[in-house]
Amino acid sequence: MNKNMTITLIGAGNVATHLASAFAAAGHNLQQVYSHSLENAEKLARQYDAAPTNQLAAVGPGAGLYIFAVKDRVLEHVIRQTPDNDGVWAHTAGSMPMSVFEGKHPRHGVFYPLQTFSKARSVNMAEVPFCLEAASPQEYEILSGVAASLGAASYPVASEKRKSLHLAAVFACNFVNHLYDQAQEILCKESLPFELLRPLILETAQKVQHLQPRQAQTGPAVRYDENIIQHHLQMLAPRPKSQSLYHVLSQQIFTFASQNK
Amino acid sequence: MNKNMTITLIGAGNVATHLASAFAAAGHNLQQVYSHSLENAEKLARQYDAAPTNQLAAVGPGAGLYIFAVKDRVLEHVIRQTPDNDGVWAHTAGSMPMSVFEGKHPRHGVFYPLQTFSKARSVNMAEVPFCLEAASPQEYEILSGVAASLGAASYPVASEKRKSLHLAAVFACNFVNHLYDQAQEILCKESLPFELLRPLILETAQKVQHLQPRQAQTGPAVRYDENIIQHHLQMLAPRPKSQSLYHVLSQQIFTFASQNK
Repeated sequence: MNKNMTITLIGAGNVATHLASAFAAAGHNLQQVYSHSLENAEKLARQYDAAPTNQLAAVGPGAGLYIFAVKDRVLEHVIRQTPDNDGVWAHTAGSMPMSVFEGKHPRHGVFYPLQTFSKARSVNMAEVPFCLEAASPQEYEILSGVAASLGAASYPVASEKRKSLHLAAVFACNFVNHLYDQAQEILCKESLPFELLRPLILETAQKVQHLQPRQAQTGPAVRYDENIIQHHLQMLAPRPKSQSLYHVLSQQIFTFASQNK
Repeated sequence: MNKNMTITLIGAGNVATHLASAFAAAGHNLQQVYSHSLENAEKLARQYDAAPTNQLAAVGPGAGLYIFAVKDRVLEHVIRQTPDNDGVWAHTAGSMPMSVFEGKHPRHGVFYPLQTFSKARSVNMAEVPFCLEAASPQEYEILSGVAASLGAASYPVASEKRKSLHLAAVFACNFVNHLYDQAQEILCKESLPFELLRPLILETAQKVQHLQPRQAQTGPAVRYDENIIQHHLQMLAPRPKSQSLYHVLSQQIFTFASQNK
């Protein structure tokens, strides 16, 4: 699809690590890896014959694509400190606008992989939706070509919409994982193993791969089964915050179920 | 493992439907299917050469196992109205105590499949944990033998613990699905397709098949990224209930992350 590119990675965290592996597997050439920790830069760079650095001033020209995969709070600073060159610069942050590049580097865009990355788990990049935005159609084409070279689908999503997407992802991933954690707390108190819930957790996620969440909703709240809800609230009385969470969620489920959609 | 049994199903809803299919596949013999709707009883019974009825008084003797898979609120009434016989009686309800059988039928127990069942989706029963309880070791052995005949693991879980397990399942399944729904609402407002989130949802569930939820927690709340959290709260201002949900969940994530575990 895309001809092979030379890519420099600014960042060596979870996202950069997974992208590096996918870029290499797709035949792209990694030129340099920057991290503020030289150790991390070296660890990642050495796997792909790239040059490590912990100096932004040492980020060289010659790559076609510069991927900025650093923490939100340092992104703008890192961009400002990187020497200008002729490549396309793109960041991978869900919540940061494309405008962070403005006034610094004209050929820019956003290359946001909508997935949760942990170093301990490999991710099939071909199943990750890439949300793209670019300063012009030329840069868009380069970014979508790189996504396609990974076997992945890409979607044009402008900065404002991407913020909403990131907010939705917080609900669907971070908050969901916290509910798993709440469930484990409840089991812990009864010395029940978390593994009991694993098939249920997986099936709940698999259901909405085909159904809409509203169609898939089950449980006491959707039919507002007052007996069970009251009983559960009593059981949670020793933990007022979990109790209030139960209350808010049950009410919202019932409200959503009562709406036409 | 278990010799083939003759089983009568009291109920023809989601749980009964999935159990009927698994029992038949495991070589058990379905004798009768009761539902208060004759149509539903007939629909399920005819698939397995069983006799349908909508009269509890017509539930006959001769089966080794009677599975009561009816709504919680009618369970006790249905048990009282069923003519006594020599079989083992077991219900499938997460939140109902085993004592609903007391004073009515001595050979009883609980056969609770910890999974979410929809008629539209087939479930591999071999991956469902069965939570069992019985009046005596003889009945326990029969129930665990039936679970084993489906290829499933079973766990002894007494009534009080089963209630906590059911509460944990509400968090890990019903509440989780509602967060998917909240995420979809956010996407809808921006005309973004829900399919963008599906890989993230699946990976979030797959992660905790191996990791503990606390290890898997990511996102702005776990590091209490004040900038993003405040910005998200502003975005949710037009929907005060979702905003309050965001607030409660973020605080709880941070509290959990700060605890030693």
